[in-house]
This record gives sequence, structure tokens and C-alpha cells, in this order.
Amino acid sequence: MFLGKVVGTVWSTKKTDNLENLRFLIINPINLKHKPFSDIVVAADVLGAGVGETVICAYGHAARQAICPANPTKLSIEAAVVGIVDRMDIPENESPET
Amino acid sequence: MFLGKVVGTVWSTKKTDNLENLRFLIINPINLKHKPFSDIVVAADVLGAGVGETVICAYGHAARQAICPANPTKLSIEAAVVGIVDRMDIPENESPET
Amino acid sequence: MFLGKVVGTVWSTKKTDNLENLRFLIINPINLKHKPFSDIVVAADVLGAGVGETVICAYGHAARQAICPANPTKLSIEAAVVGIVDRMDIPENESPET
Amino acid sequence: MFLGKVVGTVWSTKKTDNLENLRFLIINPINLKHKPFSDIVVAADVLGAGVGETVICAYGHAARQAICPANPTKLSIEAAVVGIVDRMDIPENESPET
Amino acid sequence: MFLGKVVGTVWSTKKTDNLENLRFLIINPINLKHKPFSDIVVAADVLGAGVGETVICAYGHAARQAICPANPTKLSIEAAVVGIVDRMDIPENESPET
Repeated sequence: MFLGKVVGTVWSTKKTDNLENLRFLIINPINLKHKPFSDIVVAADVLGAGVGETVICAYGHAARQAICPANPTKLSIEAAVVGIVDRMDIPENESPET
Repeated sequence: MFLGKVVGTVWSTKKTDNLENLRFLIINPINLKHKPFSDIVVAADVLGAGVGETVICAYGHAARQAICPANPTKLSIEAAVVGIVDRMDIPENESPET
Repeated sequence: MFLGKVVGTVWSTKKTDNLENLRFLIINPINLKHKPFSDIVVAADVLGAGVGETVICAYGHAARQAICPANPTKLSIEAAVVGIVDRMDIPENESPET
Repeated sequence: MFLGKVVGTVWSTKKTDNLENLRFLIINPINLKHKPFSDIVVAADVLGAGVGETVICAYGHAARQAICPANPTKLSIEAAVVGIVDRMDIPENESPET
Repeated sequence: MFLGKVVGTVWSTKKTDNLENLRFLIINPINLKHKPFSDIVVAADVLGAGVGETVICAYGHAARQAICPANPTKLSIEAAVVGIVDRMDIPENESPET
């Protein structure tokens, strides 16, 4: 899984049928320096993550299992928010800058 | 999933049997700066995405489920257009430049 | 899927049993500038792609489905040539340089 | 699989139901120079790996199989600690610097 | 699949149960310039690959199928050596330097 910051939302009308009524967030992965870089990932979300929040995202089967546990294989997604981050504990002497 | 711009089409006559009659687009992934870089992904498309349009693409099982929901495991593809983007909403203070 | 140029062949005598009689090509992924970079991928091939040809390659289940549709899960490969490229159509004003 | 150093822990209250009671570590992948770089991966852990320890991590089905062997497909994770490293043996003349 | 050079071995006592008695190699992926870079992958090996040898490695299901064909889904690995390279044939005019 990776950590990212929610930076926006993307809308699509013409899409695969199995994606109806899903919410798609634009996620900006973050690293140990907490400086977002310019890469983005589109992730489905059913937890209600808002812009500016830090989230844990998962890829592949894990993502489908988070969005539709009753029938994950029917979904055409491969990234999803699986948790909204409350707190990160990174002891200073373990950071790459020290 | 990732966001990309459709930049072209690729044709292949000699190909895996299960890819007959599929349309393959050349997709240029985009980032938060909206500047396309030179990487490309080949994605199957059944939504009719055109050159210049921004699309959401998915990898793996999700891609096969988008192209052939009746029998996804029979397909030799691992990338597909799953949505054509209408609108992206990225509040300015969440962009990496500010 | 990705586009690549076939740059060579690799031989292995001591290998996983299920890979017997398979042909392994060394593929150099290409980007929109058509300049190959130095990364390589090893891909199985049953289409007869030759050195210098441009091919479409797929990863994972899609690759196994291309090489052995009768029993894909028995194979220890995760990359395969799924098409030999005849033509690419990339309108100039969609290239990242313009 | 990849080698990484455990650099911290991440907590999430609002998360996918199937992730309840799981521990999530922040892992910093390492390379042959043993210099951590700034990328991070979030991995589930049931082995009790501590901050500062070097671990082997696996992605995808392998990760779910490590965390919940009884029912791996029910989990929304795709990275897990699968081993805590005791020792690495890298003969000097095989290092990329020599 | 990718090509790599075996640069060492990694040992772990505290690990996922299904990894008992498996041998884990540290693999340094190589590119067309044959210059190893500093990235590493940990791969399971049952072929007896030795330090300094060039190998073909596979990820995911393909790796599990190579290590335990009788019951691949029970394994928590996602990378394995699937072949020891005897010979690579890369015609000079196909190299990226010319």
C-alpha cells in the first residue's frame, strides 16, 4: 500500500458500466520528506476521504475487496482508498535525512 | 488507475487470437502539472475514446473486466480505458507547486 | 501493455520445468520519442517476433493467456509478446514535444 | 520481494472493515548501497517487526497469504512483512561500486 | 520477467510459516549496458543459482508456480528465479548506444 494526499476529484460520464456511482479521487503519493511530488493515482473511495486528507491506498484485488466485498471480481478498478490516516509515528533517527 | 491523454492508435495483424477486433490506444500518462511526459501505455478501448481526450485507465484484472465482462480471464490484455474524463476538480492550494 | 523493440534473445538450460520449449526475447521498451532507453524486459514469444521488430507486450495473467490459453496458470512467465506492430498513428500535435 | 527498513507506524480509524486489528508499518525500501531513499511503502505486519529492523516485504496475493492464510482473498492489503532479516551476505566483488 | 545478477543471499529466522526452507537471493537487475545499478529484488530460488550468475526472474503467480507447482497459492513469495542464463544474443546494431 502507499500513502497519499487527496488533491482532487475526477468525473467521468462515459465509463465502464461496473463503475457507476463510484467516487474517484486524485491521489498524490507522498514520501518520507512529506513533500508531494507530481505523480498522481486515481483511486476509488467509499470511506468519504476529503481533499487535503492523508490516506492509505491499495492496488489490485485489495482495492476491489475494499470497494465491493460482496463481489470484488466484477469491478474494473485497481486502486482504492482503504484507510484515512489519523497519525503517523516516524521516530526522527529513522528518517533518511539524519 | 491512472490519468492519461490519448495520443494515438497502434495496429497489429499478427497477434494473440483473443485480441481480434480490439482497438488499442497509445496513452500518455499525465501528472499534476498536466505536462505529458514521454512514457506510453498501450490500452484496449471499447468506450470510443478519441485522440486528445483525457481518460482513466486501469491495469490487470480490472482492465479485462472492462473489455470483456462475460469472460475476462480469456483476454491477453492488462490495460484498458475504463472512463473518459469530463472534469477534474483540483483545488489550487492542494497542487504541489503552491 | 507496453510497446517495445525486440533487441535479442536469451537462452537458459537450467530453468523451471514449465518453461521448456519456450522462446524468450529481450525487449527494450520505447517511449513517444521513439528513443529506446536501456531498460529491458524478458518476454515469452509464440508469434515469431524478430530482432528489430516493434511489439506489444503484456504482463501477468494476460501474458500466460497469450502463451498457453489451454492452461495459463501452469506457466511461470509474467511477460509475453501479444502482438507484432504493423503501424502506429500518433498525430503530431499530440506529441509531447509540440 | 524487496528489502526495507521499518521507519514508523501509521494509524487509521476510518478504514475498510477487513483491516480491523491489523498493524501497518511504514517501510523504507533499501538498495545495494544501504542508503535509504525517501520512498515509502505501507505494509501489514504480524511478525512484530520493530522500527529500525530490516525486513523482507511481499506484494499482492503473497502479502495476503502472509497475514491471513485461512482466507487471504478477504483482505484489502497488498503489501506485508514476510520476514525479519537476520543476516545478508553480499560478497564485495559483487557490489556495484567495485 | 527481468534479467538480474545474483549478488548475495538473505536470511530470516522470524518469517511467515509458508517460507520455511526456502532460499532467498538478492538480485541486482541489469539493463542493456550490462552495468548493474543499485536496485535490488529478493527472489526465491530452487534452481541453485550462485552469486555472480545471471538469472531470469519472474514476479507474482509465475514466481509461486516456479517454487511450488503443487500448491502455488499457499506461498507468500512474489519473485523467483525461473531460469539461469546460458547465453544472451543481442546484435550490436540493436543496442541503444549505436
